[in-house]
Order: sequence, then structure tokens, then C-alpha cells
Amino acid sequence: MVKVPDRNPQGQTMARINDNYLKLKAGYLFPEIARRVNAFAAEHPDAPIIRLGIGDVTEPLPEACRTAMINAVNDMGDRGSFKGYGPEQGYAWLREAIAQHDFQARGCDIDASEIFISDGSKCDCGNILDIFGNDNTIAVTDPVYPVYVDTNVMAGHTGDANDRGEYGGLVYLPISAENDFTAQIPSEKVDLIYLCFPNNPTGSVATREHLQAWVDYARSHGSIIFFDAAYEAFITDPAIPHSIFEIEGARDCAIEFRSFSKNAGFTGTRCALTVVPKTLKGQTADGTGVDLWSLWNRRQSTKFNGVSYIVQRGAEAVYSPEGQAQTKALVSFYLENAQIIREKLTEAGLAVYGGINAPYVWVQTPNGLSSWDFFDKLLHTCNVVGTPGSGFGAAGEGYFRISAFNSRANVEEATRRIVETFKA
Amino acid sequence: MVKVPDRNPQGQTMARINDNYLKLKAGYLFPEIARRVNAFAAEHPDAPIIRLGIGDVTEPLPEACRTAMINAVNDMGDRGSFKGYGPEQGYAWLREAIAQHDFQARGCDIDASEIFISDGSKCDCGNILDIFGNDNTIAVTDPVYPVYVDTNVMAGHTGDANDRGEYGGLVYLPISAENDFTAQIPSEKVDLIYLCFPNNPTGSVATREHLQAWVDYARSHGSIIFFDAAYEAFITDPAIPHSIFEIEGARDCAIEFRSFSKNAGFTGTRCALTVVPKTLKGQTADGTGVDLWSLWNRRQSTKFNGVSYIVQRGAEAVYSPEGQAQTKALVSFYLENAQIIREKLTEAGLAVYGGINAPYVWVQTPNGLSSWDFFDKLLHTCNVVGTPGSGFGAAGEGYFRISAFNSRANVEEATRRIVETFKA
Repeated sequence: MVKVPDRNPQGQTMARINDNYLKLKAGYLFPEIARRVNAFAAEHPDAPIIRLGIGDVTEPLPEACRTAMINAVNDMGDRGSFKGYGPEQGYAWLREAIAQHDFQARGCDIDASEIFISDGSKCDCGNILDIFGNDNTIAVTDPVYPVYVDTNVMAGHTGDANDRGEYGGLVYLPISAENDFTAQIPSEKVDLIYLCFPNNPTGSVATREHLQAWVDYARSHGSIIFFDAAYEAFITDPAIPHSIFEIEGARDCAIEFRSFSKNAGFTGTRCALTVVPKTLKGQTADGTGVDLWSLWNRRQSTKFNGVSYIVQRGAEAVYSPEGQAQTKALVSFYLENAQIIREKLTEAGLAVYGGINAPYVWVQTPNGLSSWDFFDKLLHTCNVVGTPGSGFGAAGEGYFRISAFNSRANVEEATRRIVETFKA
Repeated sequence: MVKVPDRNPQGQTMARINDNYLKLKAGYLFPEIARRVNAFAAEHPDAPIIRLGIGDVTEPLPEACRTAMINAVNDMGDRGSFKGYGPEQGYAWLREAIAQHDFQARGCDIDASEIFISDGSKCDCGNILDIFGNDNTIAVTDPVYPVYVDTNVMAGHTGDANDRGEYGGLVYLPISAENDFTAQIPSEKVDLIYLCFPNNPTGSVATREHLQAWVDYARSHGSIIFFDAAYEAFITDPAIPHSIFEIEGARDCAIEFRSFSKNAGFTGTRCALTVVPKTLKGQTADGTGVDLWSLWNRRQSTKFNGVSYIVQRGAEAVYSPEGQAQTKALVSFYLENAQIIREKLTEAGLAVYGGINAPYVWVQTPNGLSSWDFFDKLLHTCNVVGTPGSGFGAAGEGYFRISAFNSRANVEEATRRIVETFKA
């Protein structure tokens, strides 16, 4: 059968789109939440809504960062200190501060030249696929941060979604209370594996032994681990690794993503980093080994122009003594919120996980409610916004994420309402 | 024949890379220039090098932008005015200011919702390919801004490069003094066309009639024009359109890229925008029409997190009365530099183009020198850095780009040395 295409007004066929986008489900999770909240707010303009949904920080930027950024803006006002295009990889002073404080100080053998500064971990998690081929087998946990899945769909690495929202071709590794929210290492071979610890959405962490098992798997199978450590600052247990590069052998098999969004409150300021060890290799169709650092460096040089000088100066200030004290205080504040959420929800009779080494509390929905039904109930009854677990994947059904990112007063009021509703 | 792949130390095949990266030529143009300049500077540490190569601004950021950014940093210090994640598409106040000043004021029917704020035009020019399929025919001028070509190579839209650096599968449209640096409209059908006016690297502009001919071609062939207007602020001739959307019918066939880099000196501050009209369509494999605005909106929502609030406030200030006066003064300053370069090089006996409605002067190399030979001669004899025309494509051979982005003193000194060397 010869298909008859739509034609533009002049009768010509049109430029071809990336058909893979049409496989994407209704919309990215958070826009859908925003839609429901906005609809509710429009109907109930006086409802005192408290948002514990999207993982967005609420407290002021550390003073050290603000002072550094104001100085940087002033640098821009003088021809002698003005900064035009910076290195696409980021300024050396920032890469060196990160290498020293976040990696070398923890015994990780990571050099400043292996650190690429970017405007966001979300961006990098998607963009990293640019340097990989289209015929890798890809594993994600279920539930999972939706960006890992959606960017693979958009890149054409999957088939269509089934009724449960699972895309053909992806390997889903279920995580739940039964396996302590750490995936069983697969028996089959996968090429690219996304791991996120402390975990979004479940708030769980991985022990050194669990990470070592993943690194051993990756090395023996020639796989690459994409390790998302955006929440590492929230780790309170000294036995838990902050970086995959604390694990023996990780330089041969892992890329790490980090961010200033959650430790220093940069969600609206925008700065992140990706670590690509120079020892890391992939291979071509004919089996030649190629180092991934060079490919990522080429990708960033060609498709990116570096992060604002002003913002990089703000990120650098995170590593000053004042910046370290102020970010630590911020993180402690959100962790105390998480502790209140855990306690109050437990008091309300709900089963809770996470929230000890992470800013997310993962709640089992009561009375067999679906994740979205619980979302609607919390919104309509308590005027509290959370995130339905099923939005993070089929295995997230029956769970619900509550974020500790809000003021103390809001966390106390939100949990008071939840206790009132569910304790009865 | 069964290929025997390289194996990692444990004997397994490795994750597959994007083989298309291996088709890229030696390196992006500007890193190669930096390499040669650094090598020369290392050998001649006292050489008073003046850089008129990369198109990077040198003068202070407008005061209006700095004041707005300092206020924005202060907003971040107060819980009430703190900004977390912003809209991925950019803040409405910035999109509206752009729509009004840059488009509606010039008679372009562009709505704020069709404007997407980003961290750079280079990024957007590459990222836009995400939403298009892999089987479009792509046309670029020759010479051309290398990012258009390299990002298509990386996306797998080309074959290998030949000895002239031309990639198989791309349609090259030569521009030279013979055709007034405006390409002849192709007789064959192409799906995606990159146009840049005022032109990088040649400094040429397009008349309304030339742009109308392109729009008519695109509409009658179902093609999409990628219109790069990063240098529109440098247009001095009132008859020359600043936007493709000044042309009848462009809403059906064009995407426009703009930047704050060159008008307001944001190369190190980072802010740009892309205009995707809601009337624009492409088609799927089975011929269904799909609107491109929705695809780009999905792409940006999933793979991008918006530009720093602080930077967006700086960009907004460009549209204040003070910001308008200050950016106009900046642009005039660089245009006066361009005028000096034109006059002095003409005095030196060189044939020059551009530099009237653009910050670039395009020079014919004298005495049959190749572009890179002229580069080396200028570097070694005059200690002046420019950009070899052949770096922009095979048809740029025999030309050389000199940028007007520098201080008055440096431009005067550099052109004095060139006159001294070549006038003899």
C-alpha cells in the first residue's frame, strides 16, 4: 500500500519529525501534577495549598554564594575583569575546587580535568546519550526518575509503551520495600545502567557492598553505570558512599552526575557537573575501543558554551568555609523536615521509607488506594501536594513521594492535616 | 567475516558509542586556533598578541543588566522572593519583553508563548535537531558556522568527509564575492535549510527579496528554515529585515535563533532564545502532520531546566530604556571598530567585504595565500589572530575573518601592523 502523506498548503511533503517523540506518554509527570493542582486551585481559590510535590528547594541561597555572585556581576562591569566565552568545560578554579572537596577528600581518584560543569543534571542525564550508540541495552529501576526513561524514548532506544507505561526494549529492575529499594543485579547483560543514590523517588541509599556488586557487574559485562548523585549531600550515615568513585574499579565503568540544586539551593540558579573518567571506554561497531571523555568533551565543545561566569563563581563559593557551613545548615534544615514528615506520617498510621539520608519520604498508600487516588485525596482533603509513585514507573504504584523541601511551618501544618485526616 | 571486537579487561564487549563522532574532522575550528596561538605564545612569551579571531565580546556588560542581576541575586536571599525551578521555557516577563520589542514592534506576528529562552544559540542550533527525523535533506551555505555542520554529523545525518572537508549527504550552497555572499536557491528539494543573516562568517546581509525567495521556496517545498539572527543588532541599513518573521509566510516554514551574546555582551553571561511558531508543522513517517512547537516544548521540558533566574533578569533589563541605550552604544562601538578595520585593510591593499551591517570583516587573502597560511603570517608577523576562512568550509578557502570585537586601541594597533606589513 502506498501511503498518502499530509501535504502542506502547496502540496509538498513536509520535513520529517523525530517520530519517537510520539511514543512518549501523556506528559512529563510534573506538568501533569501542575495541571491538577491548578485546576483545583481555580475551583478553590482560598484553599491553603502546601506543595510537597516537586523536589524544589524553598529556602534562601547561601549568603556566601550571593556575595560571590554580586562580586562576579561587578567583575563584568570592568573591562579588565570582564569575562566573555569561558571554557565549555567550566572554569579551572571551579573544577579544581570540586575535584578536591567532593572527590579527592573522600579518597576518589578524580582529576579536575574529568569534571565538566553544566547548567543542570537533568540536562546532562539526557545529553549523555548523544555520545552512545542506538543499540545498547538499557536498564533502569522501577520506580525511576522519569527523565532517564523519557530521554531514551526520545532518542529512539525503546519501543512503544504498554498499558503499564513500560517501554519495549528497556530492562526494568523493580525496587520496593521487599528488596529494601535496591535492585537485584540482572542476570542478563545490559550495556547502560542508571543508578540514583540517595534515590529519587524512594529516598533509599546503597551500601558500599551493593555499589561494589554493581561495579563488579559492570566491569565484567563491559557496561557503563550512569550514577546520579544529586542528593549525596543528604547522606547522614558515615558508612554510605557519596560517590560511585569511592568504589574500587568504578573509573572503568561509571559516569557520575552531580548538582548544586539540592545542597546549595541552586534549582533556580542552575549549576551542575558530570564526571567522566579518562579511563572509561566504549566501542565502535567494528569493536574498536574509544575513550568516552574525548567524545563528551567534543559534545560539550560543539553543543554547549559553558555556564554563566556569575553562576560558576556562586558555585565556587559553596566550597569556601562560609559556604560549607551555610550549605550544611540548609541540608540539615531539610533533613529535620524529613524527620518530622516521617514521624507524623507514622503517627497517622502510614508506612514510610526513606527520609533519613535523603530529602524524600516514600509513603505506602493506605487502604489500597492507587497513587493518583491518594494524590487527589491529599490535594482535596488536606490541600497538600505530593507526587504519585506510579508517576515514577509501574512498580511505584501504591506509593507516594513527599518532599522535605519547604518551610518548617508548612511541613508542620501539612503533616498536622495528614495526621488529622488519616489517624481517625 | 566475523569481527572480533576489542574487549574490556574481563573479556566482554563494551557499550557501543555513537560512531558518527568519529566522522568529525580534527576538531572544532576555535580550539585549533587556540592551539596554534598557544604554541606561538609559548615560543614568544613577549609577543603583544591581539585577538580578532573568535567572535567574543570584550567590553563591560551594560550597567542596566548588572544592576538587574544584582537585584536578582538579592531576591535569592529572601525566602519571599527566592526563585527555585522556573518555567523551562523561560519567565513570562522576559518572553513578553522579547515578543514586544524584537518582534511585534517590527510587525512580526510572534507571541510570547512561541519564544523559548535558553542558555545559548549554539546549544539551540544543535539541540533543534532532536525533534527532527534522520532522513531529511539538509542544506548549509559554504562557508558556514561550523556548529550547523558538526551537529548534523554527530546526529548521523551525513556520510564521511571528503578531502575538502565536505560531508556526504549535505547540500552545500557556495557563497562568495561572485554571488554577493547570498546563496542561489537550490533547484532540488531540501528539507532543512540553515540561513544566518547578518552572516557569520562573511558579514553579509540578505535583502527582503532574498529572504522572501527563501520563504517562498520553503513553503512550496515543505521545508523548514533555521534562521540564525544572532547578529541582527548590527544591521544599520533600515531596509534590511532583522527577523525572518518580517517576511510574509515565514510562520509556516521558519524557526529563528537569537542571542544576547553579541548585542548586550552576554557571551560569558549566557542567554539566548529560539522562536518556534505554533503554525509550524513537520510530518511523521506515515505522513501525519505534527506541530513542531509541541515537540520543542516537550524537548525543553524534559532535557532542560530553564536559564538562571539571575541571568533572565539581566536579559530583561536589555529592554529597559537604559538597557536599550547602553546596548545600542555597545553595538555602535563595535561597528566603528569594523569601519576602522575596513578602511585600514583597504589601505593595506586588501579586498574586504562585510563589516557594515555586521561585526565581521571578510578579507580576501592576498597573493594566493591559503587561509591558514594567511593566519600563520598574520600571527607570526603582526601578532594578530583572525580566523581562516577555510575553517568555515571549503568555499571559505582564500578568505579570512576579522572580528570587530575588541577595544579601540587594540583594533587601531592591529590594523596599523597589518597596514605596515601588507602596504609595502
